[in-house]
Amino acid sequence: MLGKTYDGEVCSAARALELVGERWSLLIVRKAMFGGARRYGDFRSLGIATNVLQNRLDAFVENGLMERVEKGRHAEYVLTEMGHDLKHVLVALTAWGDRWAAPAGPPILFTHTSCGAPVSMESRCEGCGPVPSNEVGAVPGPGLPADLAAGLRALDDV
Amino acid sequence: MLGKTYDGEVCSAARALELVGERWSLLIVRKAMFGGARRYGDFRSLGIATNVLQNRLDAFVENGLMERVEKGRHAEYVLTEMGHDLKHVLVALTAWGDRWAAPAGPPILFTHTSCGAPVSMESRCEGCGPVPSNEVGAVPGPGLPADLAAGLRALDDV
Repeated sequence: MLGKTYDGEVCSAARALELVGERWSLLIVRKAMFGGARRYGDFRSLGIATNVLQNRLDAFVENGLMERVEKGRHAEYVLTEMGHDLKHVLVALTAWGDRWAAPAGPPILFTHTSCGAPVSMESRCEGCGPVPSNEVGAVPGPGLPADLAAGLRALDDV
Repeated sequence: MLGKTYDGEVCSAARALELVGERWSLLIVRKAMFGGARRYGDFRSLGIATNVLQNRLDAFVENGLMERVEKGRHAEYVLTEMGHDLKHVLVALTAWGDRWAAPAGPPILFTHTSCGAPVSMESRCEGCGPVPSNEVGAVPGPGLPADLAAGLRALDDV
């Protein structure tokens, strides 16, 4: 763990941010996932300070997002399944940035590798299929302590 | 803008992280989106330092993610369309945390508000429909300067 930063929050988003919410973390993952970066030097082009970069890579290895593979004189940092599984997060974040902070148009397009057509993220209801995001709500799940579940419902009633 | 932290990165994910990548930012948005928080005091239950909370709320207002509405003695911070549009990011981040960092099970479940069934995120190809995330790749888009587009392709060839 990078630190129990959000200890009071019983929330998987908080746990996720403890693992990938530090400055640069998601951009390093993106560089590995879509830019083919594997060696320390590949990631240096992000313009990140060397000590920060090494800290992030070490933490990713420690937390299971990357595997460190010795390749001759150079180590390679390779995303694990846990790391690759951040793709939806990166695509969703990029889509939001494209819509709200990319006046010159999207710098990067996500495509289906086998046919080349554009790919986007959508919310899918198990019963109804694709649903607009304003029809997505949150309810207490099995991992939420009972006292917090009561608090969640109370706040929703406001 | 919270700061041109990732100036060298021509990337909407970097721009998005400049707006919502600071510590606590996404958890504040989540609290407004799913927890019904509107007043300063509602957000205090996150356990966040008061100066940090006020800085984040002010920055959200300045950058267009929230609107500050005077309601009698208390101001309310209300998500704008730009703020609400982060729902896919939060759902994707939570899903990742559920899978990789929630041994007691998901604390929160996302559901379709009109039928109550579970909602998940998926990648959808315009041509083929839903696709697994390992079939999603990135190509240069219209907003990417030509020299960087060449670099992206070169790196992909490695």
